[in-house]
Amino acid sequence: MNKTLELCRELISRASVTPDDAGCQALMTARLEAIGFECTALRFGDVDNLWAVRGTSGPILVFAGHTDVVPTGPLEQWSTHPFEPTLLGDTLYGRGAADMKASLAAMIVACEEFVAQYPDNGGRIGFLITSDEEGPAVDGTVRVMEWLAGRGEQITWCLVGEPSSSERLGDVIKNGRRGSLNATLTVKGVQGHIAYPQLADNPIHRAMPAVAALTAETWDQGNSFFPPTSMQVSNINAGTGATNVIPGDARVVFNFRFSTEVTDMELRQRTHAILDAHGLNYDIDWSLSGQPFLTPSGELVEAAIASIKDELGIDTELSTAGGTSDGRFIAPSGAQVVELGPVNATIHKIDEAVHAPDLPRLTAVYRGIIQRLLVS
Amino acid sequence: MNKTLELCRELISRASVTPDDAGCQALMTARLEAIGFECTALRFGDVDNLWAVRGTSGPILVFAGHTDVVPTGPLEQWSTHPFEPTLLGDTLYGRGAADMKASLAAMIVACEEFVAQYPDNGGRIGFLITSDEEGPAVDGTVRVMEWLAGRGEQITWCLVGEPSSSERLGDVIKNGRRGSLNATLTVKGVQGHIAYPQLADNPIHRAMPAVAALTAETWDQGNSFFPPTSMQVSNINAGTGATNVIPGDARVVFNFRFSTEVTDMELRQRTHAILDAHGLNYDIDWSLSGQPFLTPSGELVEAAIASIKDELGIDTELSTAGGTSDGRFIAPSGAQVVELGPVNATIHKIDEAVHAPDLPRLTAVYRGIIQRLLVS
Repeated sequence: MNKTLELCRELISRASVTPDDAGCQALMTARLEAIGFECTALRFGDVDNLWAVRGTSGPILVFAGHTDVVPTGPLEQWSTHPFEPTLLGDTLYGRGAADMKASLAAMIVACEEFVAQYPDNGGRIGFLITSDEEGPAVDGTVRVMEWLAGRGEQITWCLVGEPSSSERLGDVIKNGRRGSLNATLTVKGVQGHIAYPQLADNPIHRAMPAVAALTAETWDQGNSFFPPTSMQVSNINAGTGATNVIPGDARVVFNFRFSTEVTDMELRQRTHAILDAHGLNYDIDWSLSGQPFLTPSGELVEAAIASIKDELGIDTELSTAGGTSDGRFIAPSGAQVVELGPVNATIHKIDEAVHAPDLPRLTAVYRGIIQRLLVS
Repeated sequence: MNKTLELCRELISRASVTPDDAGCQALMTARLEAIGFECTALRFGDVDNLWAVRGTSGPILVFAGHTDVVPTGPLEQWSTHPFEPTLLGDTLYGRGAADMKASLAAMIVACEEFVAQYPDNGGRIGFLITSDEEGPAVDGTVRVMEWLAGRGEQITWCLVGEPSSSERLGDVIKNGRRGSLNATLTVKGVQGHIAYPQLADNPIHRAMPAVAALTAETWDQGNSFFPPTSMQVSNINAGTGATNVIPGDARVVFNFRFSTEVTDMELRQRTHAILDAHGLNYDIDWSLSGQPFLTPSGELVEAAIASIKDELGIDTELSTAGGTSDGRFIAPSGAQVVELGPVNATIHKIDEAVHAPDLPRLTAVYRGIIQRLLVS
C-alpha cells in the first residue's frame, strides 16, 4: 500500500474530535523523530500542540495543520464508520480524510522522502500542528505563535495543509484570506401598545431602513487578489412574541468578510456613519476575528505553482475566498503563507472522503516545494 | 355609602380573572331579577355569559360589559390587596375597579333608579355580560350575539361600559374602533455559510427593504372619525444563532389598525403588491381580528353627549382611538354602539383604581341616557 495512504488511514482511525488529539501527534512525532526532527509537545489548556523542527540554521519552511476534526454528525447517516477508514474503489472515506489528515500524512511522507535524498540540505523544516483549529482556536496556533515569538523564532515560509482544491487536486491554492469582523447591533426604542404607536418608538421600524442601507452599501471593489468586501446579516431578533406589543429594542448580528482595500477601523467608522445618518439610538459590539492577509508573490507561491505544474500538469489558481483558517494567526508574523491541500467538496459533511490516488500526488507536490525552497 | 360604590366593592371582592366569573353575574342577576329583568345564564366552553332583558317590545338599549379582569401581576407590588376593595381618600383601589366593575355597578344602579321612576316605560333594557373580554374572546360576546341572532333579537342601541374617559369622567366616548389585521410574513431564502454569500440567498437582506417600504407606506389619511391607518411590526426573527450562517428564512409579524377608508382586502392586496415589487419569495398568513366600526351619529350618540353635558357639565369628545373592545362583535349586527366609562389611566396596571366620586356621577349619566332613549 502507498505510504501516504497508510499513514492517512492510521490518523483517521484516531477519533480526534476537537480538542481531542487522540494520539495523532504522538504518531507524527514518532515518524518525525525517526528522521531527525526535534519535537516539542505544547499543551495549552485542553489543547495538544506540536512544534517540530529539523536543521539548525537558515530559512525555515513550516508545515502547518491540525489533527482535530469536526464531529461526525449522526452515525447512522454515514455509509461507513467515520473512524474506520474505508477504501471503496478509489475513494477513502472517514472523518478528517480531506480536512486534513491526508495533508498531514502527505507532509510527513514528503519529509521522509526529502530527508532520505537530501539529509544535509541547507535549510530547516518545521511542523506547527494543533488540535484546536475546528474549535475556539484560542489555545492552538495562536498560543504556539506566541511561544515561537518568545523564542525569537521567525517562520520564513508556511505551507498550510487546508483542503484548498476545488474540482481537482492543485487547481486552487489560497495565498491569503479575507478579514472577518463581527458586529452585534442593538437598536433602542420605546416599548408600547401597538394600538398607540405615537406613545412608543418602534425599534424595528427604526432599524429596518438603516440595516437595509448597510446591506446595500458597496464597501470596496476588491482588488486582483480579493473579491469585494461582503457584509451579511446572520441574525435579527426583536419582539415580545405578542402581536399587540411594540418591543423596546431590536438586535441585529452581522459580519464583514473584508479585503485589504479597507481596514476594520474604516468598516466600523462607515457603519457608524450610516447608522448615525438614520438617527438611530443604538449600541454596537464589535469583534474582530481576523485581519485579512495576503502573500501576493514570492518564493513560496512560485514554488507551489511550479511544483503543481510539474507534478500534476495543471496551472493553479490563486484565491483568497472562503472561510478563515489558522493562516490568519501565522501571516501577521511576516511569514509567507500558502494553503494547499486536497479537494474540499466533502469537508465537514457526512461521508467525508478523499480521492486516494491524490495522496501520493499531494506528497509529490509537497516534496517538490520543499526541494525548490531548500535545495539551491 | 353610595349604592354604586357599594356594588362596585362587592364586584371587586370577587376575584374574577378571565375566564372565571367568580359569582359576579349571579350578583348582577339577583339585582336585575329584583326589578323585573328576565335573566338567562349562557355558559359557552368555560365562559359564563349573561343575557338579561326587561320589557316585551319596542327598541332595546343594551348595556354591554364584562365581569372578568386581567391578572393582578405581582401581589407584592400592589399597595393594597387587589381583590380587597380599599377606599383611600377619594380613590377606590382594586383589580377591575376601572375596567370595568365601576361601570357594571353604575349600570345596575342606573336601571334600578330608572325602573323605580318609570316602571312602565315603552322600551326595553338589556344586559349582555361576558367573562371572556380580556381573554380569547371566543366563547363570550361573539357566541351571545350568535345566540341572539338565532332568536331574531336585534339590538337597537348598545352602551358598552369600557373605561373611555381620558383625563376626567365623560371627556371621551368611543363611537367606533379601528379594525385590526394581523400578518405573519415568512421570507424564504437559501441557507449557507456566511463566507460564501453567492451560494446562499440571505432572506434578511431580501426582507429588509421590502418591510421598510411597508413601514413607510401611507395607507390612508384617516377621516373625521378615524386617525390614519397604522402599520406596526411587532416581531422579527431570523438566524440560527451562529454568526457564520446565513439563515434559510426570516419571519416578520405585523399588525394594521385600520380606518374605514380602507378595507382589510385592500390592505392585503397592497401589502402583496409591495412584497411582489421587491421580488420576494414569501408566504403570508393573515388573521383579521376585527373590522372597524363606527356609529357616526344617531340617538345613542346624541343621548350620551346630552347626558354628559347635563350631569357633568362638559362637552364630550368622540373618539375611535385605542385598542379593540367587544363593541366590534356587536356593531356588525347594525346596532348603534357607544363606549362610555370611567378614566382609563390605571387599567391593567398595578394599583388599578377609580375615582370614587365618579361612581354616582357615572350612574347619573347612564340613567340620563336610558331616560332620553326610552322615555319620549
